Amino acid sequence: MRANHLLRFPQFAHLGRATRFVDRILAIVEHIALFEDFDRDDIGKLAAYMPCYSVPAGVELIREGDAGDFLVLLLSGSAQIVKRDHAGQNKVVATVGAGKTLGEMSMIDGKPRAASCIAQTDTMFALLDRDSLSRILTEEPELGIKFLIELVQLLAQRLRATTGQLADQLDV
Amino acid sequence: MRANHLLRFPQFAHLGRATRFVDRILAIVEHIALFEDFDRDDIGKLAAYMPCYSVPAGVELIREGDAGDFLVLLLSGSAQIVKRDHAGQNKVVATVGAGKTLGEMSMIDGKPRAASCIAQTDTMFALLDRDSLSRILTEEPELGIKFLIELVQLLAQRLRATTGQLADQLDV
Repeated sequence: MRANHLLRFPQFAHLGRATRFVDRILAIVEHIALFEDFDRDDIGKLAAYMPCYSVPAGVELIREGDAGDFLVLLLSGSAQIVKRDHAGQNKVVATVGAGKTLGEMSMIDGKPRAASCIAQTDTMFALLDRDSLSRILTEEPELGIKFLIELVQLLAQRLRATTGQLADQLDV
Repeated sequence: MRANHLLRFPQFAHLGRATRFVDRILAIVEHIALFEDFDRDDIGKLAAYMPCYSVPAGVELIREGDAGDFLVLLLSGSAQIVKRDHAGQNKVVATVGAGKTLGEMSMIDGKPRAASCIAQTDTMFALLDRDSLSRILTEEPELGIKFLIELVQLLAQRLRATTGQLADQLDV
């Protein structure tokens, strides 16, 4: 497991499973849209499937264009969401902190990442990949189904917001 | 069951379960983004949870602002997607036909419908509501999980498209 992590994410310092950080996750859970309806028991179970890492400022957690298969949950620190514009220039489109989840869509559909995520400070995060989600759905189907429903709700919320913004743009 | 349907949807003519229309669904399945990875067996099982209806032109299948709890799958005919603009005028934003699913987000999160859907011709459709999805997740968890993953993929696809459109708008 450890060796596997080193191979996949050589730039991340592995901190073990997120089970060590359940209290931290619960402390920030109100900021985690994806875990809105999760209780301590759910988070404890989920954490067993999520390795944790730390990185110093400047390290890329997610790279635009990569075919990612994982999401990250920021546990501490902050990160910038950076996107290349048409001229190929990197632009900071948002700064995010503890409780933010990133990369949910690529985790499920494997499509290229829409933006990069770069640590702005020392940053600690938990990671959930597609294989682990498959294992959750097999081993803890109720938890897995709850996670998928939360994910649908999160995407629906974003889609409503984005469609609203678009309508505002088009309505000019 | 029948009485329940009459109470909930008095304006729709009930045609029984979609199991009668599995061949019709398979004939249009390549146009059903939500059932992309579903085979005959999956569709047969799912159809048992979906009542079918027919309506004449002019009937509202979905009403903007309603707290809906169901999606519809158009089996034949066509429908207009209509949205009120800022001045309160109804505007046709799209015309859709067989294979289109509508209302997936409200089915899951119960938020108000973002637009209305009005039959443009005699239209036949199958309906899946939140209670039926809950039963599928209990009685046929593999199928239910497959459905949720397809739904996440569909929403992710729409979100990528919408975010792209928005970026283009903002980039002007």
